[in-house]
Amino acid sequence: MSLVLDRTAQDLLFREAHTANTFTDEPVTEEQVQAVYDLVKYGPTAFNQSPLRVVLVRSAEARERLVRHMAEGNRPKTSTAPLVAILAADNEFHQELPALFPHYPQAKDAFFAERPVREQSAALNAALQAAYFIIGVRAAGLAAGPMTGFDSAGVKKEFLDDDHTPLMVVNIGRPGEHAWFPRSPRLPFDDVVTTV
Amino acid sequence: MSLVLDRTAQDLLFREAHTANTFTDEPVTEEQVQAVYDLVKYGPTAFNQSPLRVVLVRSAEARERLVRHMAEGNRPKTSTAPLVAILAADNEFHQELPALFPHYPQAKDAFFAERPVREQSAALNAALQAAYFIIGVRAAGLAAGPMTGFDSAGVKKEFLDDDHTPLMVVNIGRPGEHAWFPRSPRLPFDDVVTTV
Repeated sequence: MSLVLDRTAQDLLFREAHTANTFTDEPVTEEQVQAVYDLVKYGPTAFNQSPLRVVLVRSAEARERLVRHMAEGNRPKTSTAPLVAILAADNEFHQELPALFPHYPQAKDAFFAERPVREQSAALNAALQAAYFIIGVRAAGLAAGPMTGFDSAGVKKEFLDDDHTPLMVVNIGRPGEHAWFPRSPRLPFDDVVTTV
Repeated sequence: MSLVLDRTAQDLLFREAHTANTFTDEPVTEEQVQAVYDLVKYGPTAFNQSPLRVVLVRSAEARERLVRHMAEGNRPKTSTAPLVAILAADNEFHQELPALFPHYPQAKDAFFAERPVREQSAALNAALQAAYFIIGVRAAGLAAGPMTGFDSAGVKKEFLDDDHTPLMVVNIGRPGEHAWFPRSPRLPFDDVVTTV
């Protein structure tokens, strides 16, 4: 075995983890979300730009507003998950760069003075952080149900502003009955990896 | 402690892991790369679309071609890392969807008939997989050095084709001397997470 990570951790994070479509009623606590963040905040981003922003949808009123913008097939699970998080990219992340990247504070102006550059960089790096977040939810013993099927403009208007781009909505909780489909096949190594 | 993942695994993947800028000479084997892939291939993507493609740059000739397209500050580490991987998004991933998403093979035409839609979906989902890959490299006890500072058009022309978009280049190996900067600060929870 070429991995150092122990088998239990491999299973928890990847091999036995599944995208959940149903959940139990057990709440997801603020402490759990903080523990997830305090772990995954260390995942790498370019210039440590850390553009991910998270909106936790906890009130019934906010949940109702969100569900309205989800694709129809995603509404039942988004209605019933114990916690739903909107993950977004902050396109004005460069304001934080002098603090986040102290050994080269000039990066803010040298690389990120232009909004289209920032949007592209934030989209990629917030997506990396979204993946770390999903791994972190699993590290807390919870199941994640990430979804991209929603009206992005609607979610942006309801919950964000012009400086933030929604990336995905994630249902979070303990898996319920028939929580997932059987594991779908993955591409074989040789279809994905080539050597030059 | 709200996490189920044990502390050793937390440290290996997040808390003690750093982006490496120098490496030892110890080679990264094919078995290690396969073990990484066989773990991280299970990370979730929308419709299990799995758009990440990886080019391992192993020959001296290919390494030289790649280094030419790297930003100047990235050239020394890309020249000396035991292994360098180009991570790219396959914008024609939908061809594999009937096999990858067998319980709804119609997704290929229902959702992904148009190239701009595929490009957007591939960019997000390949970025998620790039993050899983970085975590997987760390799970193998290796250090990753992901970089976005390179000439994208040049890398595409040298190593890919019109259907593939380069996302990042990753140096891989055991960390060498002075391999990283001191840990940069992370944003506090309340600056990242809001509740509605």
